[in-house]
Amino acid sequence: MAGSTLGTIFRISTWGESHGKALGVVIDGCPAGLALEEAHIQAFLDRRKPGSSLITTTRREEDQVEILSGIFEGYTTGTPLSLMIRNTSQRSGDYGNIAECYRPGHADLTYDQKYGFRDYRGGGRSSGRETAGRVAAGAVASRILKQLGVDVYAYTRSIGPVEIDDSRFDRSAILSTPTAMPDREASLTALEYLETVKKESDSSGGSMECVIEGLPSGIGDPVFEKLDANLAKAVMSIGAVKAVEIGDGCQVSSRRGSENNDALRMCDGNIVKQTNHAGGILGGISDGSRILLRAHVKPTPSIYRTQQTVTRSGENTDLCIQGRHDPIIVPRAVVVMECMVALTILDAMMINMSAQLDRMEKFYK
Amino acid sequence: MAGSTLGTIFRISTWGESHGKALGVVIDGCPAGLALEEAHIQAFLDRRKPGSSLITTTRREEDQVEILSGIFEGYTTGTPLSLMIRNTSQRSGDYGNIAECYRPGHADLTYDQKYGFRDYRGGGRSSGRETAGRVAAGAVASRILKQLGVDVYAYTRSIGPVEIDDSRFDRSAILSTPTAMPDREASLTALEYLETVKKESDSSGGSMECVIEGLPSGIGDPVFEKLDANLAKAVMSIGAVKAVEIGDGCQVSSRRGSENNDALRMCDGNIVKQTNHAGGILGGISDGSRILLRAHVKPTPSIYRTQQTVTRSGENTDLCIQGRHDPIIVPRAVVVMECMVALTILDAMMINMSAQLDRMEKFYK
Amino acid sequence: MAGSTLGTIFRISTWGESHGKALGVVIDGCPAGLALEEAHIQAFLDRRKPGSSLITTTRREEDQVEILSGIFEGYTTGTPLSLMIRNTSQRSGDYGNIAECYRPGHADLTYDQKYGFRDYRGGGRSSGRETAGRVAAGAVASRILKQLGVDVYAYTRSIGPVEIDDSRFDRSAILSTPTAMPDREASLTALEYLETVKKESDSSGGSMECVIEGLPSGIGDPVFEKLDANLAKAVMSIGAVKAVEIGDGCQVSSRRGSENNDALRMCDGNIVKQTNHAGGILGGISDGSRILLRAHVKPTPSIYRTQQTVTRSGENTDLCIQGRHDPIIVPRAVVVMECMVALTILDAMMINMSAQLDRMEKFYK
Amino acid sequence: MAGSTLGTIFRISTWGESHGKALGVVIDGCPAGLALEEAHIQAFLDRRKPGSSLITTTRREEDQVEILSGIFEGYTTGTPLSLMIRNTSQRSGDYGNIAECYRPGHADLTYDQKYGFRDYRGGGRSSGRETAGRVAAGAVASRILKQLGVDVYAYTRSIGPVEIDDSRFDRSAILSTPTAMPDREASLTALEYLETVKKESDSSGGSMECVIEGLPSGIGDPVFEKLDANLAKAVMSIGAVKAVEIGDGCQVSSRRGSENNDALRMCDGNIVKQTNHAGGILGGISDGSRILLRAHVKPTPSIYRTQQTVTRSGENTDLCIQGRHDPIIVPRAVVVMECMVALTILDAMMINMSAQLDRMEKFYK
Repeated sequence: MAGSTLGTIFRISTWGESHGKALGVVIDGCPAGLALEEAHIQAFLDRRKPGSSLITTTRREEDQVEILSGIFEGYTTGTPLSLMIRNTSQRSGDYGNIAECYRPGHADLTYDQKYGFRDYRGGGRSSGRETAGRVAAGAVASRILKQLGVDVYAYTRSIGPVEIDDSRFDRSAILSTPTAMPDREASLTALEYLETVKKESDSSGGSMECVIEGLPSGIGDPVFEKLDANLAKAVMSIGAVKAVEIGDGCQVSSRRGSENNDALRMCDGNIVKQTNHAGGILGGISDGSRILLRAHVKPTPSIYRTQQTVTRSGENTDLCIQGRHDPIIVPRAVVVMECMVALTILDAMMINMSAQLDRMEKFYK
Repeated sequence: MAGSTLGTIFRISTWGESHGKALGVVIDGCPAGLALEEAHIQAFLDRRKPGSSLITTTRREEDQVEILSGIFEGYTTGTPLSLMIRNTSQRSGDYGNIAECYRPGHADLTYDQKYGFRDYRGGGRSSGRETAGRVAAGAVASRILKQLGVDVYAYTRSIGPVEIDDSRFDRSAILSTPTAMPDREASLTALEYLETVKKESDSSGGSMECVIEGLPSGIGDPVFEKLDANLAKAVMSIGAVKAVEIGDGCQVSSRRGSENNDALRMCDGNIVKQTNHAGGILGGISDGSRILLRAHVKPTPSIYRTQQTVTRSGENTDLCIQGRHDPIIVPRAVVVMECMVALTILDAMMINMSAQLDRMEKFYK
Repeated sequence: MAGSTLGTIFRISTWGESHGKALGVVIDGCPAGLALEEAHIQAFLDRRKPGSSLITTTRREEDQVEILSGIFEGYTTGTPLSLMIRNTSQRSGDYGNIAECYRPGHADLTYDQKYGFRDYRGGGRSSGRETAGRVAAGAVASRILKQLGVDVYAYTRSIGPVEIDDSRFDRSAILSTPTAMPDREASLTALEYLETVKKESDSSGGSMECVIEGLPSGIGDPVFEKLDANLAKAVMSIGAVKAVEIGDGCQVSSRRGSENNDALRMCDGNIVKQTNHAGGILGGISDGSRILLRAHVKPTPSIYRTQQTVTRSGENTDLCIQGRHDPIIVPRAVVVMECMVALTILDAMMINMSAQLDRMEKFYK
Repeated sequence: MAGSTLGTIFRISTWGESHGKALGVVIDGCPAGLALEEAHIQAFLDRRKPGSSLITTTRREEDQVEILSGIFEGYTTGTPLSLMIRNTSQRSGDYGNIAECYRPGHADLTYDQKYGFRDYRGGGRSSGRETAGRVAAGAVASRILKQLGVDVYAYTRSIGPVEIDDSRFDRSAILSTPTAMPDREASLTALEYLETVKKESDSSGGSMECVIEGLPSGIGDPVFEKLDANLAKAVMSIGAVKAVEIGDGCQVSSRRGSENNDALRMCDGNIVKQTNHAGGILGGISDGSRILLRAHVKPTPSIYRTQQTVTRSGENTDLCIQGRHDPIIVPRAVVVMECMVALTILDAMMINMSAQLDRMEKFYK
């Protein structure tokens, strides 16, 4: 089904395979009047590009975005934005043995099971390259959110056993460390760890967090369209994510109510929560405070060790994956998480505009 | 917006407040030909009823379901099923002080922020009673899944610090222990813990798991409609859930690839995974093996201690909640998780039927 | 599939069969803050009740609506409104022969073809009684539209060969003539015609129109969600409607451009169309002028003549329908058309609120 | 909102402006296993290209389609198909005066009203060129339908006063006459008429029909998702269509039941309708017989006469449109109608697969 489509009012459809002609996204429902040029989107795409030779692949992925429609005289027109990125570096020799056998931890098997066959070139649609379309769309959503006063940013929380220390949190480090960690010390330790992992022909898992600041209260809908439910879906839809937490997340299950409730106090005429265990969302609706999300990412399944697997024709075999693969996905996935969150938040803000009749009356009068 | 609606083909709309006239659900898109009577639904609703006086409220919630439409001569007709549960035990004196101030950890504040005012009787729509409609619908979905050979069951994994021991796993205990734990020993320990918590006017968090067995491979769609993404949304939409894990969940972030990949081997002509760290889903698509989900639930926010909060008119106040409240939500939420998973799985199975052209040809020939 | 669900943000799900326990609708996404009581909805339902013994059935359909949820202290809360109408007059003896054979012009055959069997009592879900849920929901939509300054009204344009004369248009007659014609003279002629038709054991077709006044410009979306496209769907979804026209409708196909274009002129600072052949919509978007829709309704298929048909077991048979049936549907369908238009317009207005970024900024600042 | 997106399971998103860089469509939800190459799509696109210099514009619109994703080794993979058509012949000088004033009968005014400004180059997104994306997607849907045994074809019924004679119906003429009429005599008369119209600097309306043959019974859903309702929406969404009829359409409103009911008889073990006034759909569900649809298309609003209009700044002005415009839209719109019908039918067939539980069981066993 239409699994590559996301959103109700701000709706995106991504397309493209790892080794096809191009990848891209159509954004349908973008508000008119946003000043937009390719450079704004390129800045986001550059964050998911392979960077440091140590922790990301050395493949050359240029990912130059082209805006094909939806802009006139520098502004969005309200009609669909079509964004395209040509694939330039696909090499046909890379995936020979993958055609015949299933890589453990990859979606090779399940694509065959679902569709009867699959595009095995570099993982096809199940490749991480699929996220280029998400990031291109997320760049537009982020830009709109910025104009609405909402700030969304993600970063690496941990790499294997190495975690950031919140007391050293430095937002500027996110974009300048190869790990996307907001803690330069932890980043150095993590890089050392990754070097070891790589030497051992292995890979590492990690975790990432995303913060939303400045979101008005009242965003999100009760019951099934809770803001946290939609954020969980958005983040879990990123390949390799196996767990999503909101606020204090998993910790709440061993807590008591007296520890976990966030007391309320007035402060300069505003309601202020004394703590934020809930992570900014109550009953699925934003309360105006900081929202925090965490995602746990599995280690890159492509490792350079011999692994047991089976062939398409049903025979046991040993597989040794070739090619260039990141020992960790997280530093490049951070911008994907940020984009998925931005897309979800923006759609929820658009939907929320008709929640109160008197605000509709004011809008249309 | 339409936040109380779930599903694409098997679509449900729940309605009703804690202390209104009734609650219910409309199921639109149920296949024709299912033998169904009220008793099938009632059995599920009874599982979320208050039970043991120790850990659940002593409120009398009869929750008798009535099927108002969609059945003819004992079978579903393909047209909407309307299921209604009359509220019988609402007592108007229970919620006096809640009208004027916001209970910490509840959605009182955010409903006011979103809608300009709220139905404060027992939490209104944000009450746990809202889940009665989900469970009624989930009972129907589960019954269909059973006929398709799919088995879904949930249980309590932990209550506060007390966790089940998998070596003692006993499925029959789920329905017979007041904790919904599949481990009778752990259940007794947990009940002791809850007694302490209750004496201290406090409440406890906990965790629950859901297992899907017999699901065909190929269910779920790439990119945004991944099966795990939709399951995460479904489970996170249950009030008080703050984290969702698939398979090994949070643990993967500190692992290496060599530990986390599931090797494949042929076994009696079938592909068999040697381990199941992935939890039965690869690339968002079921691989035919067992699916495992975990949810972390916060402690009941209603505790009998004095808490700091503010009034609607913006003044600091101290609140001491009255009434009857469960010291833990999990044992009653287990059936809600099971139902949300069943609803999600069934819809995905319906959508999947057109994934391959030759299967469509065979269907229509 | 979920065919009984309509709308994106203001979403309704209707349910119920002709001779089941009850019929109803859930409205999910209604804005908070609308003053609403049962009498407001009842007034609409009364318009689709059988009235004059001459042209509508003498069945007693009380159609008393009950609001089960979504209202608090007289106002909508933003959560789902559940509206229910108990069936009171179903008589089991009415439909004996219908169980075994297919009534020509009815959906008996196609329901069997689609679902494998059907609820044959009074047509089940394909009965005109299904529209009670639409009207209950439409009453709420209309009430909101009124507060937004939008006026929607429908009426009978023709009954068989008898058409209204626009020069005698009298809106007050719509609710006071048994034909729902806004022309008392034509109404009398039509009643005479219907008397003849009835004597001849026959039935009559007719047409109806709906007018929207006060709709702001800019409502509706380009390409597939054009306002006229959604209106056409909404109106064509009413049983027995076989054609839908917008503005001058069918006439345009034999016209020239010079006759059909609507010239624009400034008038007191406003843009005014000199004619309105387009019917108030250009490129699928409202232009701020009057919108006109027309629907053609087939004659009631239930007639008292012997008709050729076949049985479920595949034998030719002659059928003579018993029971009480209107010789014409149109006078009772007028309020259904009005409601379907109101539901469509309101949803489009809600969706339109995020079309311009600067209006979003103003809303959220 | 997401107005450029159509369909639930077979979902398309079109994009692109008349004079932008490119136009295209993303098809999300296409079944895997369809043999597809660019030539299959090109054949459909060629049918909407300007052809005869007499009745269509002399603009050179090459409309070469490129498949960017979703195909592997000649077959669809189940993942999104991205189809792109580069704009090659846009000339910037064509639309000077349109920037400042509103062309009567065009969407210039309403786009400005909705979005605050518009892309005025050649009509931007409201241009007929927008339909290239629809046709590219429709070509894919048609190809799938053919494999499922469903045949969809459209043709011109009338041009101004000139109508085809059904007794001369010749399907082969549809693709070989410049009018797309299935009646060569009528086509010649129509061409003469168009010559006159053109000489008088005017344009002409017309009508078109679409036939569906071989559609299984049971397709379409009750109430709001009736097959005829969705077909009406699909066809009304084509620019310039002002009326849609199903079966005998408008004629039914002046008929009696005894004339309009279609009697049923057994014939070689099959149920056969003696007539087909209903046009193959009863209660919104296909009955297995031939489906007939008719659309009325307004005259091209661009005419070479001086017309009254207003400027963006609110002044009266006289406008004389320059450039090259078809005197009639219908012959090129015929393939658009055919494609919109194909897209609608295919999506309904996919949705229908889960209507009966025992057919689901058979599918999944």
